[in-house]
Amino acid sequence: MSVSESIKPLFAQIDKLKPEYITRLANAVAIPSVSGDESLRPKVFAMADFLKSQLESLGAEDIQLRDLGIQPPPVSDPKLQLPPIVLARFGKNPAKKTVLVYGHYDVQPALLEDGWNTDPFKLVEKDGKLYGRGSTDDKGPVIGWLNAIEAHNKSGIELPVNLVCCFEGMEESGSLGLDELVAQEADKYFKGVDTVCISDNYWLGTKKPVLTYGLRGCSYYQVSVSGPGADLHSGIFGGVIHEPMTDLFNVLSKLVDTNGNILIPGVNEMVAPVTETEEGLYEKIEFDVDELNLASGSKTAIYQDKKNILMHRWRYPSLSLHGIEGAFSGGGAKTVIPAKVVGKFSIRTVPDMDPRKLDEYVFKFVKEKFAELKSPNQLNVELIHDGNYWVSDPFNEAFTAASKATKLVWNVEPDLTREGGSIPITLTFEEQLKTNVLLLPMGKGDDGAHSINEKIDVANYLEGVKTLSAYLHFYGAGSDSK
Amino acid sequence: MSVSESIKPLFAQIDKLKPEYITRLANAVAIPSVSGDESLRPKVFAMADFLKSQLESLGAEDIQLRDLGIQPPPVSDPKLQLPPIVLARFGKNPAKKTVLVYGHYDVQPALLEDGWNTDPFKLVEKDGKLYGRGSTDDKGPVIGWLNAIEAHNKSGIELPVNLVCCFEGMEESGSLGLDELVAQEADKYFKGVDTVCISDNYWLGTKKPVLTYGLRGCSYYQVSVSGPGADLHSGIFGGVIHEPMTDLFNVLSKLVDTNGNILIPGVNEMVAPVTETEEGLYEKIEFDVDELNLASGSKTAIYQDKKNILMHRWRYPSLSLHGIEGAFSGGGAKTVIPAKVVGKFSIRTVPDMDPRKLDEYVFKFVKEKFAELKSPNQLNVELIHDGNYWVSDPFNEAFTAASKATKLVWNVEPDLTREGGSIPITLTFEEQLKTNVLLLPMGKGDDGAHSINEKIDVANYLEGVKTLSAYLHFYGAGSDSK
Ligand SMILES: [Zn+2]
Ligand SMILES: [Zn+2]
Ligand SMILES: [Zn+2]
Ligand SMILES: [Zn+2]
Repeated sequence: MSVSESIKPLFAQIDKLKPEYITRLANAVAIPSVSGDESLRPKVFAMADFLKSQLESLGAEDIQLRDLGIQPPPVSDPKLQLPPIVLARFGKNPAKKTVLVYGHYDVQPALLEDGWNTDPFKLVEKDGKLYGRGSTDDKGPVIGWLNAIEAHNKSGIELPVNLVCCFEGMEESGSLGLDELVAQEADKYFKGVDTVCISDNYWLGTKKPVLTYGLRGCSYYQVSVSGPGADLHSGIFGGVIHEPMTDLFNVLSKLVDTNGNILIPGVNEMVAPVTETEEGLYEKIEFDVDELNLASGSKTAIYQDKKNILMHRWRYPSLSLHGIEGAFSGGGAKTVIPAKVVGKFSIRTVPDMDPRKLDEYVFKFVKEKFAELKSPNQLNVELIHDGNYWVSDPFNEAFTAASKATKLVWNVEPDLTREGGSIPITLTFEEQLKTNVLLLPMGKGDDGAHSINEKIDVANYLEGVKTLSAYLHFYGAGSDSK
Repeated sequence: MSVSESIKPLFAQIDKLKPEYITRLANAVAIPSVSGDESLRPKVFAMADFLKSQLESLGAEDIQLRDLGIQPPPVSDPKLQLPPIVLARFGKNPAKKTVLVYGHYDVQPALLEDGWNTDPFKLVEKDGKLYGRGSTDDKGPVIGWLNAIEAHNKSGIELPVNLVCCFEGMEESGSLGLDELVAQEADKYFKGVDTVCISDNYWLGTKKPVLTYGLRGCSYYQVSVSGPGADLHSGIFGGVIHEPMTDLFNVLSKLVDTNGNILIPGVNEMVAPVTETEEGLYEKIEFDVDELNLASGSKTAIYQDKKNILMHRWRYPSLSLHGIEGAFSGGGAKTVIPAKVVGKFSIRTVPDMDPRKLDEYVFKFVKEKFAELKSPNQLNVELIHDGNYWVSDPFNEAFTAASKATKLVWNVEPDLTREGGSIPITLTFEEQLKTNVLLLPMGKGDDGAHSINEKIDVANYLEGVKTLSAYLHFYGAGSDSK
């Protein structure tokens, strides 16, 4: 019997469990596990306990709440404990493949006063949508995996793979401690993992499901210009000293033009040429400039055609100026000459950019442009942090299984997308476990993760559980499964 | 008998009163009349009461503490009362000339933790210097006038002019209510005033007394660039939308070069040519690039010669970039694309710049440079506030009298200086009372007004009282007095 046939009772079970699924998500949303708010840290722990009891009742083995110790500064409470990473496994049959599923149980901050229509920590169903903080990012998908297991248990269908769960509680606050744990457990708890599935991003738009096979990296730089020993009065010093702000504006204005072209020599030359296979992927994708304008809340698109928009979001680098530290930043008028100003910008990186070469090009160009000014001020340029880009083969075993699952559930081929942002954990898993990673999103592009009135569509939540389940079955059954 | 002769007993009296003078200043400094700190507002009122009782005991007539009503927003306490303007007069003899003396009795904030070596609100004498908040700005000079009157009283020497005192308590916080009061009283309390003397600035350096005959004006602008409906994620939108920051940096980088040259067409053309008389004034002035470097705490001077430094501080315009509102301004790294950014800059203005023409040139240039970008973002440029420049004839009756007084007390011709900053009240008095204004500073260039360890030299305080007194006598005796 084909997977498509054998999975039907499971899907029926999932449909039947809908009320329980919504209740389970409501219980999770009700715990305000905001990792970025120290005062809510006990709630993040409460959420870990909630997952533990859910996992227990679903029959998970070897459940561990891994203590990550004390959160490093800056913190208000020097003894602030990091929330645990929740590990659990279902099955350890050496005859089966092993899938690691990652998700995070912490959420972004949310206050009714921010403009929410309803209490952010009460799941509210309206017009086929489930509103609440974490509904789509990332409690919906995390609970989705539990739902999938429940459906297997209740329908008496065996899980087709060994499942390893890795749920963290600090994702919205820098994933502190996660890298170390993954490295540490690569040959222990995570030994034998064949593939990793992360459900923590979104469809490109609102109509078509997607599988995501690429992420841009990010190199973050700062340029400081300093001169005077202290901030100076512009009445007294204006016109007689070289002002750091003038020099900084001069240099930073030369990095990028209004059309987003990076003007630093060498950078664009590192970008991998477009292949024919890649060319072919864009045409099918459901997207247009109106979606971009809707998302940006403006008509400020540089490109009006789908292909250029997607290519510049996904496969070309970009440079954004973020701000200045040390300058006047308040409302009103202040006439100070800042003594030291630090400009911040980042470059989104893509294949085949070499991050160390990028640093070299950036440093050289910034220093050259500053040298041309012949200013006696001091300039310093440095890398603050970087994370590499990630690109997978969208036709490998995991993607193929996910594609079949999507087709089966949604009756449409998923779009193969990349993302302009980064999900650093993707690379960590790939590098530490030496496996590939699949990004299999559950929510829609308009879900409003991190924003007010975050939601997940009931359809995405329910069909999402089916998609996750079907993915496990197709993956477990191998490349030729149908 | 010449003034120089007849004033000798007065000077002797001043020397004798030194301990009383220091105690009077200590009593004033002990009242933390910080106008910018709402919680200290009662202390500002206490300081007004202190002046009132001092004026009473010195025999002042018609003392008025003028109520200025409630302080307009932004304030924490919506009923916060403005401190009064203290008015008083000594003499109303129509045969005498009338001099209005202005000073302020409020001070800048000061905390021991800021780095003061001693309690800022306790006057401490050390190595010939009196340390304490307000010692030089502006309690020293205000108390200086009271000391001068006391010396006259105690030595039985008649005041040579009618004296009108105008002491305000909001100078450090925008002089709220002062303009209105001056306008209102021009033909009433201030009727018959022949000249105004303000002692609220400083010697250029530390060695030679000065008279100040010019101030630059200031026109403050903001340029906003907006596009997206909200701040955006640079991973998702970087490279596909026109970023407001990129456009703002592009435009603002074109206003001024590292050498302080204003690049806006028409601006430099408005500057009055240097006259021969003015040329002659610079050579004598005590100043050099080392003093500038010491003051800026750096070697970032654009010009190395005295004349160019002074001319560019005093008689040429300058443009300073102050900061950006709406961009990331904290420490660390944030990858946001700001939706709306507002750049702030100001232009210090000089004769014969027409502020309305300046606005026109600024607006036109900024809009032109933005138009060249062909960006779909929205740019808006506006004037936030402006204050005109002020220049007086440094050889008029009041300056001549002050010059003789300085020569007599300090045994040296004062330098004739201008300042790069502005003292808006100067123009208000000149315009409303239709008189000229003399800036007769008491403190030295290194007194540290507004900074930690503010001080006034005992010598400047004592000889300052003599200088103020002698000025009144030379002015009262007319141009030919000796
Ligand atoms: Zn997430
Ligand atoms: Zn998130
Ligand atoms: Zn002052
Ligand atoms: Zn001041």
